[in-house]
Amino acid sequence: MAPTPRRAARRRLQLPLLCLLLQGATAILFAVFVRYDHETDAARWHEGNHSNADNEFYFRYPSFQDVHAMVFVGFGFLMAFLQRYSFSSVGFTFLLAAFALQWSTLVQGFLHSFHDSHIHVGVESMINADFCAGAVLISFGAVLGKTGPAQLLLMALLEVALFGINEFVLLSLLGVKDAGGSMTIHTFGAYFGLVLSRVLYRPQLEKSKHRQGSVYHSDLFAMIGTIFLWIFWPSFNSAPTTLGDGQHRTALNTYYSLTASTLSTFALSALVGKDGRLDMVHIQNAALAGGVVVGTASEMMLTPFGALAAGFLAGTVSTLGYKFFTPVLESKFKVQDTCGVHNLHGMPGVLGALLGVLVTGLATRDTYGDGLQSVFPRIAEGQRSATAQAMYQLLALFVTLTVAAVGGGIGGCLLKLPFLDGPPDSQCFEDRIYWEVPGEHEDEAQGPLREEELDTQA
Amino acid sequence: MAPTPRRAARRRLQLPLLCLLLQGATAILFAVFVRYDHETDAARWHEGNHSNADNEFYFRYPSFQDVHAMVFVGFGFLMAFLQRYSFSSVGFTFLLAAFALQWSTLVQGFLHSFHDSHIHVGVESMINADFCAGAVLISFGAVLGKTGPAQLLLMALLEVALFGINEFVLLSLLGVKDAGGSMTIHTFGAYFGLVLSRVLYRPQLEKSKHRQGSVYHSDLFAMIGTIFLWIFWPSFNSAPTTLGDGQHRTALNTYYSLTASTLSTFALSALVGKDGRLDMVHIQNAALAGGVVVGTASEMMLTPFGALAAGFLAGTVSTLGYKFFTPVLESKFKVQDTCGVHNLHGMPGVLGALLGVLVTGLATRDTYGDGLQSVFPRIAEGQRSATAQAMYQLLALFVTLTVAAVGGGIGGCLLKLPFLDGPPDSQCFEDRIYWEVPGEHEDEAQGPLREEELDTQA
Amino acid sequence: MAPTPRRAARRRLQLPLLCLLLQGATAILFAVFVRYDHETDAARWHEGNHSNADNEFYFRYPSFQDVHAMVFVGFGFLMAFLQRYSFSSVGFTFLLAAFALQWSTLVQGFLHSFHDSHIHVGVESMINADFCAGAVLISFGAVLGKTGPAQLLLMALLEVALFGINEFVLLSLLGVKDAGGSMTIHTFGAYFGLVLSRVLYRPQLEKSKHRQGSVYHSDLFAMIGTIFLWIFWPSFNSAPTTLGDGQHRTALNTYYSLTASTLSTFALSALVGKDGRLDMVHIQNAALAGGVVVGTASEMMLTPFGALAAGFLAGTVSTLGYKFFTPVLESKFKVQDTCGVHNLHGMPGVLGALLGVLVTGLATRDTYGDGLQSVFPRIAEGQRSATAQAMYQLLALFVTLTVAAVGGGIGGCLLKLPFLDGPPDSQCFEDRIYWEVPGEHEDEAQGPLREEELDTQA
Repeated sequence: MAPTPRRAARRRLQLPLLCLLLQGATAILFAVFVRYDHETDAARWHEGNHSNADNEFYFRYPSFQDVHAMVFVGFGFLMAFLQRYSFSSVGFTFLLAAFALQWSTLVQGFLHSFHDSHIHVGVESMINADFCAGAVLISFGAVLGKTGPAQLLLMALLEVALFGINEFVLLSLLGVKDAGGSMTIHTFGAYFGLVLSRVLYRPQLEKSKHRQGSVYHSDLFAMIGTIFLWIFWPSFNSAPTTLGDGQHRTALNTYYSLTASTLSTFALSALVGKDGRLDMVHIQNAALAGGVVVGTASEMMLTPFGALAAGFLAGTVSTLGYKFFTPVLESKFKVQDTCGVHNLHGMPGVLGALLGVLVTGLATRDTYGDGLQSVFPRIAEGQRSATAQAMYQLLALFVTLTVAAVGGGIGGCLLKLPFLDGPPDSQCFEDRIYWEVPGEHEDEAQGPLREEELDTQA
Repeated sequence: MAPTPRRAARRRLQLPLLCLLLQGATAILFAVFVRYDHETDAARWHEGNHSNADNEFYFRYPSFQDVHAMVFVGFGFLMAFLQRYSFSSVGFTFLLAAFALQWSTLVQGFLHSFHDSHIHVGVESMINADFCAGAVLISFGAVLGKTGPAQLLLMALLEVALFGINEFVLLSLLGVKDAGGSMTIHTFGAYFGLVLSRVLYRPQLEKSKHRQGSVYHSDLFAMIGTIFLWIFWPSFNSAPTTLGDGQHRTALNTYYSLTASTLSTFALSALVGKDGRLDMVHIQNAALAGGVVVGTASEMMLTPFGALAAGFLAGTVSTLGYKFFTPVLESKFKVQDTCGVHNLHGMPGVLGALLGVLVTGLATRDTYGDGLQSVFPRIAEGQRSATAQAMYQLLALFVTLTVAAVGGGIGGCLLKLPFLDGPPDSQCFEDRIYWEVPGEHEDEAQGPLREEELDTQA
Repeated sequence: MAPTPRRAARRRLQLPLLCLLLQGATAILFAVFVRYDHETDAARWHEGNHSNADNEFYFRYPSFQDVHAMVFVGFGFLMAFLQRYSFSSVGFTFLLAAFALQWSTLVQGFLHSFHDSHIHVGVESMINADFCAGAVLISFGAVLGKTGPAQLLLMALLEVALFGINEFVLLSLLGVKDAGGSMTIHTFGAYFGLVLSRVLYRPQLEKSKHRQGSVYHSDLFAMIGTIFLWIFWPSFNSAPTTLGDGQHRTALNTYYSLTASTLSTFALSALVGKDGRLDMVHIQNAALAGGVVVGTASEMMLTPFGALAAGFLAGTVSTLGYKFFTPVLESKFKVQDTCGVHNLHGMPGVLGALLGVLVTGLATRDTYGDGLQSVFPRIAEGQRSATAQAMYQLLALFVTLTVAAVGGGIGGCLLKLPFLDGPPDSQCFEDRIYWEVPGEHEDEAQGPLREEELDTQA
């Protein structure tokens, strides 16, 4: 069946129009609402008589750059493991994140820094927008290879808004702590993506099964992503914490947690592997679970031992999830989870939230001293007991799961709109639908599939 | 035609002798002239009674490392897109940049920090030398694949000197602002390289045309470069700005500008692509134009909206340039621009300079408050009106274009000296002339071409 | 010869059990001994009334992240140059480093920061643990491809302990200076690995010779490692130095030394190469020797010229070592040095120690002024003359060589224990023994070798 001219025209126009529309809309909103904050504005900064050394920017900016590197290099390349979908993995990461940074500046700005009729942006805005982009990229991992760029942009449009609302409810209304985002980023991003993937379930996906694996060098590109996520996770978790001991403790706990998840991942991967062989999928992903699991608790007095124990548990659960649970998720629950985000972000995220409940419940004035004010201000001010704060943390997990699930459901329905052009079942995990693709070898003239070819295979 | 023994001997000796000569000369000059500055010298630092927190070094150094990462990883890998020239792209980047860092320390030192008969080096020297290396690598992009390493070193020798002089004229004599180098780095580097490439025009280059494209994984290596350039550009533009609000504003504006150029690049690439498909060349390059275009204005009160608009425009112009103007540049103007530096650095650089003119002309004491002193000292001190300063900015663009064009012309003639051994027309974009190259697969004994083979094909 | 069931079971269980055992042991020791230091502890930090700007953490943390990036990305990918061993190179780097970080926290903690019955950890612990991981990875480079993961973990267990002891003897007992670790990291790691490799000498290794080279794209992955090591070396050498001029000078010297070693490597590589062609092995490795050679002296008043001269010498020696000495090392001394760590870390490390002796011996109160106290406290306090301090520096080199050689010998015997499952001579440099490996191309079903196949070939 040859494509109708209308369909060809639609494909050509859909992505450009959506990009231009979204960019136009955010630009107008920027023009009306977004202004420099007092640390970024020439006039107001000098009124404030800042000294550079007292300037929060200088302590936050290196963390921002680490987060920025982690989100773009890390998520982008981690998803490049598929043999014929690396252009899309890296390219759409770029597209989605660029849009999410703008849109999330607006959403979070309205909710958190709107005063004098304006949103005031500075280094915190950049960090928060990068965090939101991280959540969007986690969801992207669940639907990787099965959605077109226009669909992904619409997903981001919805998800960024819900991310902002969920975060606002958690941090501002419920007053819970979640610096590294076990709940707001990982749990939210994972379950949003998984429910969305459930709605988009493709019973005929085995038509593209032969393209769903990696090749030797695509696994190495993915390891670039893994290592960047691993090395910069201490900065990621600590970027928004209170300056001082809070930031130091968060970085330290994350560092140790990751070492433990790496060791448990190697142990479990060899243990469950065929003939004791290691599986690259586990190493690429589960080794990172230690960063996810301390996303809530690393700011607290988790202790270095607590960090090791948490990381060890997360690596174990994540590796076993890849081996035993992912197949069940697809066969029983009809959730096709391309990157296994349930194992890397879903379960470790929930565990991280529960660890946060536990460590919060154990908080005492003795352990935290005068530092209690910065970690748990509501306990320090006598508004809540440690147990009450722990219950709020637990409530926050359920709120997050609910918002993510409902949002993912709505998102899935949105992405099923008939004029949105997803890849056919036989052309999933395939760059050539969306990209001009060169051959794999110098002497190969393997041009893009012809239009007819793509469509008749559909 | 077999190579004469003399020619074989020349090839073997040319690069080593040039490296040793240049290294020897810079070493002697370092011995005579270069000394630690007061922040780096053990004796003088302690006289000054510095506190670490007041020490400029600590606020500059993280930016320096970001710039350093961006220049080496970014430019090196961005140019690795060619299927059989990746060793040269990454390797010669390394060679050229290493030489440029030394030589530029001397040139810029004589012009900017020469007192007490010595050049005084510190963190600013490192940042400025890295900036100069960036300009040299931009020019390298124009001639990529068509020049040998000895030629490239001579190009760097000339270009670093002219870069220093042009920058000195702009910043010290004309008193213009150009923190991120829309003029001094991008416009200068691009037009120097383009004019040089014009002088070296090869009418028979189609003999190597089959090697001028990418293969699948070389495009992914290039995307490493793209992402590094993208993520660290906020640090690049803000590295030399005034500490405080100037640095913050520059980083923020660059961040937003890049998100907009990314969206417009995706939109335009799909719009002009065959069947609406995206082109990796656009994504790898044009998405970065947002960083170039705010190189002058990001330090100013551009507003976040202004950053988005500028980035959007730059991405658009750059993508259209790749599609429509690059072929014309070669066929009509006889400029062979391997990496399309005209689209990524040339046009966006000029646009950036003009944007600087505009934003400068709009500067008011009201908008900048007491910050006017640090952004536009000559306006704050009443020496110039905003309009006059804007005219100086415009003049600076013409000075830059003139110096770059004349310099590129001289450089081209220099590189045509007959004893300099460039690759023959049929061996362009080919690593095997300069490198021992292994095969592409484990079971392949594809050794380097034999000498005769290379020469007879010439 | 089919594997006995016992051997198959052993292979499956050895790595998991060792990982779990080591992780369990370090976790228990963490629980008993490791506590947050005063900058990381909520209660104690606030007692101290820190201001953020006076907080050492904020000046150290960016360096830590640079070191962290350098160790993991740098060493991991530098060793990925082998055509069929990249999974192991990157993966075991990860495993070894993760274990080394934990274990080294304990060893160094007992030796350096044990008081009140506890080890107190903070940003210095993280930097020091990363340094120790660097030494372990250097040794890994010597035995790369010839050892299994269980063997490597045992190597790390021993090496981390000896690293800690050697460092304690040098820095605390002998009172020598070695900020960037020419002795403690490079010399120690190299000779430990080389002696260990000598003990494990395989006369039949030519059975795997066809797998010991690179392919085109594996060399590019290795260049990622090279560039990361190159760019972050200034942070590596300066991370543990005294805040202030010491840190600035160290970064600056390292920066210039690396530019010179790059130029001399290109010169020598072309000079000794066939037909004047460059060798990627030289560029990937010898260009970095400038970072090693100033590991001791970069903190001192080496002068920028001294840095250039040292770097030039190191690049020359290292390149010539790869060309002429590595073959002799194998044929005459029976040391099989896969990555040539003798050329990159061994000889330049010893040269760096000797350079430290020289520059120390030249120290005068005149040159260092009041800064003498922070660089050479024992000279400043009159306990030692400059000559005496230089003799201590020389003694430290011999201590390091002795500890490394004895340790490497013991380590080699340990790794020869019969139940430790190293790869057979015909299966060295081969991922498929330890990893599930996908094919190299999309249409290739090149699964892992069957068990029998691996064993009969042994």
